[in-house]
Amino acid sequence: MVLGKVVGTVWATRKDEELVGFKFQIVKHIGLDYKLKDTFVVAVDTVQAGIGDIVLVCSGSSARQTTLTKNKPVDAVIMAVVDKLDIEEEN
Amino acid sequence: MVLGKVVGTVWATRKDEELVGFKFQIVKHIGLDYKLKDTFVVAVDTVQAGIGDIVLVCSGSSARQTTLTKNKPVDAVIMAVVDKLDIEEEN
Amino acid sequence: MVLGKVVGTVWATRKDEELVGFKFQIVKHIGLDYKLKDTFVVAVDTVQAGIGDIVLVCSGSSARQTTLTKNKPVDAVIMAVVDKLDIEEEN
Amino acid sequence: MVLGKVVGTVWATRKDEELVGFKFQIVKHIGLDYKLKDTFVVAVDTVQAGIGDIVLVCSGSSARQTTLTKNKPVDAVIMAVVDKLDIEEEN
Amino acid sequence: MVLGKVVGTVWATRKDEELVGFKFQIVKHIGLDYKLKDTFVVAVDTVQAGIGDIVLVCSGSSARQTTLTKNKPVDAVIMAVVDKLDIEEEN
Repeated sequence: MVLGKVVGTVWATRKDEELVGFKFQIVKHIGLDYKLKDTFVVAVDTVQAGIGDIVLVCSGSSARQTTLTKNKPVDAVIMAVVDKLDIEEEN
Repeated sequence: MVLGKVVGTVWATRKDEELVGFKFQIVKHIGLDYKLKDTFVVAVDTVQAGIGDIVLVCSGSSARQTTLTKNKPVDAVIMAVVDKLDIEEEN
Repeated sequence: MVLGKVVGTVWATRKDEELVGFKFQIVKHIGLDYKLKDTFVVAVDTVQAGIGDIVLVCSGSSARQTTLTKNKPVDAVIMAVVDKLDIEEEN
Repeated sequence: MVLGKVVGTVWATRKDEELVGFKFQIVKHIGLDYKLKDTFVVAVDTVQAGIGDIVLVCSGSSARQTTLTKNKPVDAVIMAVVDKLDIEEEN
Repeated sequence: MVLGKVVGTVWATRKDEELVGFKFQIVKHIGLDYKLKDTFVVAVDTVQAGIGDIVLVCSGSSARQTTLTKNKPVDAVIMAVVDKLDIEEEN
């Protein structure tokens, strides 16, 4: 999984019929210092993550292993909201 | 999913027989500021996206979860046309 | 899918028994201007692409969705020979 | 698989219900000289790896092939703790 | 598939029980000129590749399509030993 921060939402009316009702969140990747990177991914939210939340994003076929996303054409899903990172060894 | 803009089309007469009738769109990746990046992907269009449309592209096995692409040898599909991006937190 | 140009062939006598008879082509990635990039992928040819052909390469599990590659240990397949690219919007 | 070193843990109370009890470890990628790289992945631990351990991380759908992670929305798993690397040819 | 050269071996006693007896080879990526790159992957050997061999590595779910690796938590497999590369067009 990758770490990221929810920074926005994608609005899309015209989409595959299987995707009606899905919330597409924009997740910027972050480092272990919580700093935002330039890269981002658009992920379906399954845990009601809000703007500013630090989250874990699961990609690929594994993104279809939640009740919500089963058999759906999505390749990234927010499956956890992060409380904190415990970094014990950095070097 | 990744964000991109449809900038063109790939014409291919000789192809796997399962792909007859498919439209292969060239999608350039974009940033959250809508600026085009240098990278691109060729994706099957399932939502009748047109040139200039901002779209969401789903990759990997998830690209085969639409009615059109089921069991087909394609690894990227346009599954939504983007209306707008709501960016609420950038830093 | 990614765009590439067939520039050579890989010869491999000792291989998984499921792969006997497969043709492994070396495909260099290209840009929308047809210029070769430094990166490449080795892909199984299913459409009799020849040296110099511009092709579409499909990767991952989707590379196993052709009649030839079903259930085979291959992760990239040439599934179309490109006639031309129509680029209508570049900026 | 990729080589990495366990440097920390992710705490996440709110998560997909299938993930209760999972341990999410932060694994920094390393080179063949054991030096830490800047990149990292968050992986589910299935072999009780501890902080400082050198590990192998398996990604994608293959990350769901352990007893623990079967059908779960995870895309990276620690499936081995490394004893040592034997590098016999470097150039 | 990607091209690489076997440069070493990973020893791991503590691992997923499905992986007992597997040989994990360290494969450095190479260019079409056979020069080693800095990047590498750890792959399960299914064709008895030796140190110094040039090999093809198959990744992702396709790495589980050999008799040895079926349903195992591995995401990269050496499925061919390369005899030679025929590069016919470079520019």
